[in-house]
Amino acid sequence: MDLHIVIDRSQPLGEQLLRQLRGLIRSGRLATGAQLPPTRLLAEQLGLARQTVAEAYERLTLEQLIEARRGRGSFVRALPAAEPERPAPTPVRLASAARIAAFQALPVPLLRFADSPLARWDFIGGSPEPALFPHEDWRRHLHAAQRQMSQGGAHAPPAGLLALREAIAEHLTFARGVRCSAADVIVTQGAQQAFDLLVRVLVGPGDVAAIESPGYPPITGLLQAQGARIAHVPVDEQGLVTDALPPDARLVYTTPAHQFPLGVAMSAVRRRALLDWAARTGAVVIEDDYDSEFRFEGQPRDSLQGLDTDGRVAFVGSFSKTLAPSLRLGYVIAPLALRDALLHAKHLADVHGPRLLQHALARFMAEGAYRKHLRRCVAEYGLRRERLMAGFAGALAPWLTLLPAEAGFHQAALFKAGSDIDATRLAALARRVDVGLYPLQGFGADRDGLLMGFGRITPDGIAAALTRIAELLAP
Amino acid sequence: MDLHIVIDRSQPLGEQLLRQLRGLIRSGRLATGAQLPPTRLLAEQLGLARQTVAEAYERLTLEQLIEARRGRGSFVRALPAAEPERPAPTPVRLASAARIAAFQALPVPLLRFADSPLARWDFIGGSPEPALFPHEDWRRHLHAAQRQMSQGGAHAPPAGLLALREAIAEHLTFARGVRCSAADVIVTQGAQQAFDLLVRVLVGPGDVAAIESPGYPPITGLLQAQGARIAHVPVDEQGLVTDALPPDARLVYTTPAHQFPLGVAMSAVRRRALLDWAARTGAVVIEDDYDSEFRFEGQPRDSLQGLDTDGRVAFVGSFSKTLAPSLRLGYVIAPLALRDALLHAKHLADVHGPRLLQHALARFMAEGAYRKHLRRCVAEYGLRRERLMAGFAGALAPWLTLLPAEAGFHQAALFKAGSDIDATRLAALARRVDVGLYPLQGFGADRDGLLMGFGRITPDGIAAALTRIAELLAP
Repeated sequence: MDLHIVIDRSQPLGEQLLRQLRGLIRSGRLATGAQLPPTRLLAEQLGLARQTVAEAYERLTLEQLIEARRGRGSFVRALPAAEPERPAPTPVRLASAARIAAFQALPVPLLRFADSPLARWDFIGGSPEPALFPHEDWRRHLHAAQRQMSQGGAHAPPAGLLALREAIAEHLTFARGVRCSAADVIVTQGAQQAFDLLVRVLVGPGDVAAIESPGYPPITGLLQAQGARIAHVPVDEQGLVTDALPPDARLVYTTPAHQFPLGVAMSAVRRRALLDWAARTGAVVIEDDYDSEFRFEGQPRDSLQGLDTDGRVAFVGSFSKTLAPSLRLGYVIAPLALRDALLHAKHLADVHGPRLLQHALARFMAEGAYRKHLRRCVAEYGLRRERLMAGFAGALAPWLTLLPAEAGFHQAALFKAGSDIDATRLAALARRVDVGLYPLQGFGADRDGLLMGFGRITPDGIAAALTRIAELLAP
Repeated sequence: MDLHIVIDRSQPLGEQLLRQLRGLIRSGRLATGAQLPPTRLLAEQLGLARQTVAEAYERLTLEQLIEARRGRGSFVRALPAAEPERPAPTPVRLASAARIAAFQALPVPLLRFADSPLARWDFIGGSPEPALFPHEDWRRHLHAAQRQMSQGGAHAPPAGLLALREAIAEHLTFARGVRCSAADVIVTQGAQQAFDLLVRVLVGPGDVAAIESPGYPPITGLLQAQGARIAHVPVDEQGLVTDALPPDARLVYTTPAHQFPLGVAMSAVRRRALLDWAARTGAVVIEDDYDSEFRFEGQPRDSLQGLDTDGRVAFVGSFSKTLAPSLRLGYVIAPLALRDALLHAKHLADVHGPRLLQHALARFMAEGAYRKHLRRCVAEYGLRRERLMAGFAGALAPWLTLLPAEAGFHQAALFKAGSDIDATRLAALARRVDVGLYPLQGFGADRDGLLMGFGRITPDGIAAALTRIAELLAP
């Protein structure tokens, strides 16, 4: 018998063998009743220790995929549910069919999964450089946190572990001028859950909610799921156009530090006007402090939350951009009037987040590793930003203007007046030369342009990619 | 100067010192301008290495809490926001005030936080034995998972990592007769998030939802948040009384393997009737497979999901009882008609769960550590169950009857007819002799009795506690 098994010596051997044997059995290529090769033989064939093969057979036996017949060898068993018998594919009549269909039709956040391929030079936004992840420090604190959880880990408070809330409050007080203490912090499963909780607590069917246009797509689906009426408020070089805010909104969602996708910062005048509007209308301001940690020039601007004297701003942040999206750690600094309702919502949504990761992050922050890491990131992203600005001031100057941004790892580029370039067509052409471009219109912009993220592209990559774009644009 | 700092030598020293110094500064006990003791002095006073104290001072300097003045020592700085200036405590007028208040009024899940004290002998339900947590195996797989995440970790699919979904599907196929493959599994933040997603997808304002009475409290708040009308369906010794199901429900929530709180298993006849009712009405059945993994007698009963040929059962499970609640890992096996809508809902709620824990659990399961762990748990809980049954058959027999349960780590005890004992009064008396008792009426039962959980009490503890209860009941 010739089993098709390929062993990659750089990976755990036993696991590979087990996975492939399982696959052969489940797919039917090793049929019911088939005899497996004796462990000694298979071990020789694959260059593995006999013990490794024997252990794999043992596990397959435990999993009831094979059985050992005394003195004869190991045989594939009849599978109880190799191909699970599925309910017939005819549509099932459900009392909630309309609601289910409406849910399916909601717009969902745009994001990249681990396995969706980037271009060789990719200007995707919102995705941090994985190579910057502070593996050594993180691992050390993670292991220490695990050791300290000598009791497996009972439930944590819905707001999150106190040590983490303290660390976040401390960080925000110093770094972002946010006025808060640990009691104001609710740890969430990424910023997305913070938005979800806020929307659920603030918006019911028919209520008006204002968002930036162009804006951050993930918020739209949440509002629609609640049956909100969405008011799209334009954005210009000073940020959200506050004069265009509707009088009857329950909330406004905004990205003042670094507008998504335009990258501009909200001006001081607009910040003031926004808070005045909120005081007049009773609306809550959701301040998404999206990648403000990466500041390259100028004094840090005050956060809206820091300017607010009225308790109307919910400040939302995340570790997805500064550490890694896969950690799913974010937070909301809740205004007093919302705090209890948000805690109830969090409690109902998932009780609380995983204790281990909160514990590890609390240690990581308290010991200064987070600050050190942010400094490294600012240095690296700063280099990339310089290359990007140089390219737009040089080879790309005839066609595109880069909007200014003080912070964050993306900027927006607008086509110059009179240019007849179509961003979607340019993106398609760029992809052929292995450059990933993202038209602003994908985020609801009415002006043609590009989102230029530099989280996933090296400084040299930026230079190379911009040269290629210039070649595509040259007549 | 005499700093009040207490060092516990079994804990990390530097961290304790740092925390206490921070506390002294923030509370104002070390006022602005105060000089800290020289490192050498404080080190001597506390019996610490001088380096430990110097590092703590360095961190406090970085955190801008103290400053070093050359040649003079370290001094407490003026705090930028020692007592954060808070918005005035006068109530803020918000456009959503009514909705916020309604959210605050929702019933939230009952659960024990890590720091809420149990009685010495405590019969709390739903809380597993922390000492059973498989630290060695878990730590090994966690560390391996972290090592393999060489790239920090990009986003994962909303449904969860494929390896974990495969492991869960495999486990459920063999252990619970669930018909599923990895594609049917959505990994959630504990069972609570699975219920949340299901309720959001199935129930809108005014819709009818049926729940067991007495039943599992966490489901009620979710339904009320959606504006559902709740139908309370009674439970007897055969489980949910299917004849009492309303004709117009969108969903029914049930715990067939081990009813919460009565502990009984749903009979085969009722299972059939429930599925027939669902087919007739178009309702979805939420099967909460709550602690069914701990089976002590009889053949495993088929899950409702395994009996369903129509795609109407959403099967929900959790690792909170089998491993630890703090992991926040659960899952829903989605019927085909709901799968896409649930994935959208998960995507909007929090995008996906933390990659590291999913990766670690996938390894832990694939390598057989989960099965091994479950066997250990069943052995230990089986011992406790025997002690409990012996006590109720003996000393407590005059007053109480234990309802039968085949699985799970709690049973319910009912007061015998004619008994005039009040469970709430008994619980109060028991607390005085350090026994924790939980009246069934807390879960909506109309019969007086007690929930007898044995997750947090040893076999000997059970015997001791039951003796005390008998003493309280004896005339």
